[in-house]
Amino acid sequence: MPIDLTAASVTEAVQKAFEGTADERVKELFSRLVQHLHDFTREVRLTGDEWFTAMDFLERVGKTCTPTRQEFVLLSDILGLSVLLDLIHHPGSGSATDSTLLGPFYVEDRPTAENGSDISGEVTGTPMFFNGRVLDSDGAPVAGARVDTWHSDGQGSYDVQMQDTLHGRLAMRALLTTDDEGRFWYRSVAPRSYPVPDDGPCGEILRAAHRSPMRPEHLHFRLHAEGFEPLITMLVRSDDPYVERDAVFGVRRSLVVDFVQRDAGESAPDGTRMDKPFQTVERTFVLARKEQ
Amino acid sequence: MPIDLTAASVTEAVQKAFEGTADERVKELFSRLVQHLHDFTREVRLTGDEWFTAMDFLERVGKTCTPTRQEFVLLSDILGLSVLLDLIHHPGSGSATDSTLLGPFYVEDRPTAENGSDISGEVTGTPMFFNGRVLDSDGAPVAGARVDTWHSDGQGSYDVQMQDTLHGRLAMRALLTTDDEGRFWYRSVAPRSYPVPDDGPCGEILRAAHRSPMRPEHLHFRLHAEGFEPLITMLVRSDDPYVERDAVFGVRRSLVVDFVQRDAGESAPDGTRMDKPFQTVERTFVLARKEQ
Repeated sequence: MPIDLTAASVTEAVQKAFEGTADERVKELFSRLVQHLHDFTREVRLTGDEWFTAMDFLERVGKTCTPTRQEFVLLSDILGLSVLLDLIHHPGSGSATDSTLLGPFYVEDRPTAENGSDISGEVTGTPMFFNGRVLDSDGAPVAGARVDTWHSDGQGSYDVQMQDTLHGRLAMRALLTTDDEGRFWYRSVAPRSYPVPDDGPCGEILRAAHRSPMRPEHLHFRLHAEGFEPLITMLVRSDDPYVERDAVFGVRRSLVVDFVQRDAGESAPDGTRMDKPFQTVERTFVLARKEQ
Repeated sequence: MPIDLTAASVTEAVQKAFEGTADERVKELFSRLVQHLHDFTREVRLTGDEWFTAMDFLERVGKTCTPTRQEFVLLSDILGLSVLLDLIHHPGSGSATDSTLLGPFYVEDRPTAENGSDISGEVTGTPMFFNGRVLDSDGAPVAGARVDTWHSDGQGSYDVQMQDTLHGRLAMRALLTTDDEGRFWYRSVAPRSYPVPDDGPCGEILRAAHRSPMRPEHLHFRLHAEGFEPLITMLVRSDDPYVERDAVFGVRRSLVVDFVQRDAGESAPDGTRMDKPFQTVERTFVLARKEQ
């Protein structure tokens, strides 16, 4: 019976109140959640004022959320919870390419594109040529793999953040398909490092901790192929100043690659003689076969 | 450096990101919060779908909050966190009256009232007579103590929930002052057990766990007197069916009292011959002296 409780015994009483939960998994989740919430509160001897501040903070996080702004996901990101989930479920096999966070900018309704096409839309910037290859863990090409890619422009903005000028169009994103040699390639504009949104409640945490809101320059990829595990990953620019202090802890060393600067006058990978500086990025992705 | 992280090492990396926090207490709170959030996530191997459900739930909790509806406070209440805070900071001395939750219905701008007056406002119900006494831990009366009381009506509704009929007036609440013998007394209407608001996100948890949303019938009190620790407490009706399963774990055995039913024709404590059934409640409160 939940009376005559002490700061020690109240935890078990609350857990008992969840014993009638029909779903065993839900019961387990609440039992462990209550344990950790209470242990935290006891360990730090949380004060009433701190609790009130936390309740107010969480309310403001909820009120900041919109269909295009997920402040709770961002809170999960900056507390390392999102990447922890990824690491738990995709610890990395060594033989397949490591996964990392999907991030908030993936869009279901992205356009499809032919290999070699320019996917920059009407966004201007330093030309970037990406050449990718998709292999299985034996080194054999995976033909017909569907590869999503999306990235920011040279100011660090995604198309969905630039709708004042794009008026409903998407840009710097496409769904490509690998050829018989497992290759896919496209032209776009070079991305840039950018801050996570820090004008809301999560920004208060970053500032209190003197943490940078920046994510290093990167390209997103999502790969699907029949018979293989799907892969959500990201390539990060090796010489970016934020590569070792990503605000959301999403960088894995295995995903750091050179974004190579080329001079005006050099030839692009597609043979075009370029009249201004450009950038090339190459990468092979290895997919893990689905277990039978 | 926060790359090459594993599900085990990511926690320390996130805690290190908080090392630049200027305020030592804030640093401690985030370090321990990250530890428990991550430990919980690892222990239960939280899935992506469960995480998404949790983010969506928290967003809806935030959006449910209004100036008169604190859904995050309710979430804290039904997870036993609110009462844990009270038990940590007011474990109960044995010599003074135990404290418990303030609850969401305390109002700063309550009216003052003379002892003996009817504080029911224009709310109808079974008459209730309350007689209280305030003593120090040596048994000496505390004169001039300021005593707030507030309670529901016979349908379990507080005045702030009945504004359709009360039109801005407050009722069933008052600030009284003890006389030279430490006594205070008033007339009102009898309260009733009532459910916490279960039409929002927190109701989903209560239903999933087959938990009752009910709080047993009770009267709230808040006592202030110069030289004494303030006391926030509540008296709970001993024969209420929910006395041992309060939805928010706020009942302490020491605060359970008899709400005595009296018949028509009997005399009220103030000598009035009552022509209908009524109720009487009595209680002595003991205040702890402030430490020098």
